[in-house]
Amino acid sequence: MTDVVIAGIGQTPVGEHWEIGLRDLAFDAIQNAIKDASGLKPQALFVGNMLAPNLSNQAHLGALIADYAGLTGIEAVTVEAAGASGGAALRQGYLAIASGMVDVALVLGVEKFTDKIGPEVEEAVSTTSDSDFEAVQGMTAAAQAALLMKRYMHENDVPANGFAGFALTAHANGIANKNAMFRKAIKAETYAKAEMVSDPLNMFDAAPNADGAAALVLTRRDLLPSDWDAPRPLVKIAGSAASSDTLALHDRKDILYFDTAQISAGNAMKQAGIILNQVNFFEYHDAFSIYAALSLEAVGFAIKGRGWKLAADNKISLTGKIPCATMGGMKARGFPGGASGVYQAVEAVAQLRGQAEVNQIPNAKYGLIQSLGGPASTAVSHILQRLD
Amino acid sequence: MTDVVIAGIGQTPVGEHWEIGLRDLAFDAIQNAIKDASGLKPQALFVGNMLAPNLSNQAHLGALIADYAGLTGIEAVTVEAAGASGGAALRQGYLAIASGMVDVALVLGVEKFTDKIGPEVEEAVSTTSDSDFEAVQGMTAAAQAALLMKRYMHENDVPANGFAGFALTAHANGIANKNAMFRKAIKAETYAKAEMVSDPLNMFDAAPNADGAAALVLTRRDLLPSDWDAPRPLVKIAGSAASSDTLALHDRKDILYFDTAQISAGNAMKQAGIILNQVNFFEYHDAFSIYAALSLEAVGFAIKGRGWKLAADNKISLTGKIPCATMGGMKARGFPGGASGVYQAVEAVAQLRGQAEVNQIPNAKYGLIQSLGGPASTAVSHILQRLD
Repeated sequence: MTDVVIAGIGQTPVGEHWEIGLRDLAFDAIQNAIKDASGLKPQALFVGNMLAPNLSNQAHLGALIADYAGLTGIEAVTVEAAGASGGAALRQGYLAIASGMVDVALVLGVEKFTDKIGPEVEEAVSTTSDSDFEAVQGMTAAAQAALLMKRYMHENDVPANGFAGFALTAHANGIANKNAMFRKAIKAETYAKAEMVSDPLNMFDAAPNADGAAALVLTRRDLLPSDWDAPRPLVKIAGSAASSDTLALHDRKDILYFDTAQISAGNAMKQAGIILNQVNFFEYHDAFSIYAALSLEAVGFAIKGRGWKLAADNKISLTGKIPCATMGGMKARGFPGGASGVYQAVEAVAQLRGQAEVNQIPNAKYGLIQSLGGPASTAVSHILQRLD
Repeated sequence: MTDVVIAGIGQTPVGEHWEIGLRDLAFDAIQNAIKDASGLKPQALFVGNMLAPNLSNQAHLGALIADYAGLTGIEAVTVEAAGASGGAALRQGYLAIASGMVDVALVLGVEKFTDKIGPEVEEAVSTTSDSDFEAVQGMTAAAQAALLMKRYMHENDVPANGFAGFALTAHANGIANKNAMFRKAIKAETYAKAEMVSDPLNMFDAAPNADGAAALVLTRRDLLPSDWDAPRPLVKIAGSAASSDTLALHDRKDILYFDTAQISAGNAMKQAGIILNQVNFFEYHDAFSIYAALSLEAVGFAIKGRGWKLAADNKISLTGKIPCATMGGMKARGFPGGASGVYQAVEAVAQLRGQAEVNQIPNAKYGLIQSLGGPASTAVSHILQRLD
């Protein structure tokens, strides 16, 4: 089995970039990643994007961005799986390298929300849910998450403000991340007083839609000289897996269990040859705090119904039992849609290289990153490993 | 190198299916393909689709269709590269099998145009061109093709009605294809009297947008018993390659040469270890007749400026030097957007198996299929080979 490694990472700050276009965001992240990979030349581009055909009236991003980035001629394609588009693009890049057909692949995640505003954005995001059965009823992503959260709180006797830990941790970790959208700690009282988005889901239970781009350069270990990148450790993709579920919640047997999060994380760990307690940190998909809770349970860090307690008990902080959202997660770094999964990978590589500065998890060797589309209708999980 | 084979094919009739939804079209094609593959169980789904987020307000097709087809849980993703989405999905499926990470992959192409009508469709299609520089000027796909055609006719002294051969061949070949949208021959006079869409491009120079779905089951040769499918010959993917170019025509050095068609076809043939005159038939991307002419030239069947003459001289018919659009092509079979590239593969497999009935190319061993996005802004080429 060939080792697939991440030889370069790049990102743009996440935020509302009213003055920067989609292709320019992509350009910046790609330049940063190629520079970080000492100029390796990509032969293929996999673009993770969720909504550009709706938000920016622009499909066909593969060819557009390859050309704009000065890579005219390489193969290029868009990979879409709603909010999991970034993770799915990483998986396609991984498969391309593993096949031996591509030597160097560029994986890009890019999303540009601020080309539209307000209800137009909600409408665009709703195309990722079951259009014929959910979106037509006016159910937005936040409303759907609120239903999950309400049921979860009811079934598991979660107290009011029981989910505060997720936002507190994310915002604490975002402070030192210069690419994060929000870099300010919040207090428990701030969470408790926050306005409702869709009861019981408040403003701090939902990650902010934002613009951003992140990129990775993938290659095979055996194509690099043995001392390549030294003394910086190389990071390998040790496990890669994906799974799908129904889009609509009403089609599920148990709406409070994320099957795909379990299956994809389990398969990725199996491939990597590790067990859960070897994972040093978990970049979960905290588009909503209820997603974070359910992901912790599905992956196995908490028993069913107790994911929220890990956060409440401060066990997901940088010094906790299982550090999560180590650079701020989607809540504080921001949620650039289909780019999010690539941001997770960029941040995990920084952790595994020891470049995470004050957010560093000491001696991190294995990171689990998980990218979800909708309420885990798609889940893509990767185990990244530091090579010594 | 592992042999990747196409173990099953399926399709729905192409047409205006006002009463059939996108997921139902997909369901039918998938059922047909799995049945044709003797029930092999897919572990992954690659959906080629161009415009569902705009035309049907439905993104996240991977998970949606996997579930609807009774394959809940498998990994599933959408692959988009405008009109080349079908070819691109096939390439992702190929890479997945070649990587050894996936044993059985389902490649689906699906498009549902009739969820919208008229200008809404034009607007949706325009998202595949350069939105900031072309679409905003009101340049539709047909207008862009007309510009190419006009310049081509001027530079190469093409007489009025010089492109008629493409439509005549396509419609002649469509008669016996029970899945084709148009099954009636046309005469040269019919072409000559046709209404202009965008001068000099008339109604018969443009393939009709249509609904349809086609599917393929891919696996590794070594996973099948040696007598599998006998006496039907197995079909192997002997070559697979893709390339990208600028979306906007004004960014090109020579608008009358399809670089990506040349590069991707050349690389696919190189991988297959064959030269051009071993190719028994060519399923080109005749969304517009000018595309067909330029593809014939880029691939090498005609010198620059003479592609139209191959058609005019009847050399692309079933008994010609290089049979093209053997089941009617996009012109007569219809153009179901991102499904088109998968239809090409289904039709090529039928040819290579000897199942093409009255349209059969005798003893066909190698077929070249080529899927384009925009004016060859993306090109994906595959060489399919009959295994004896």
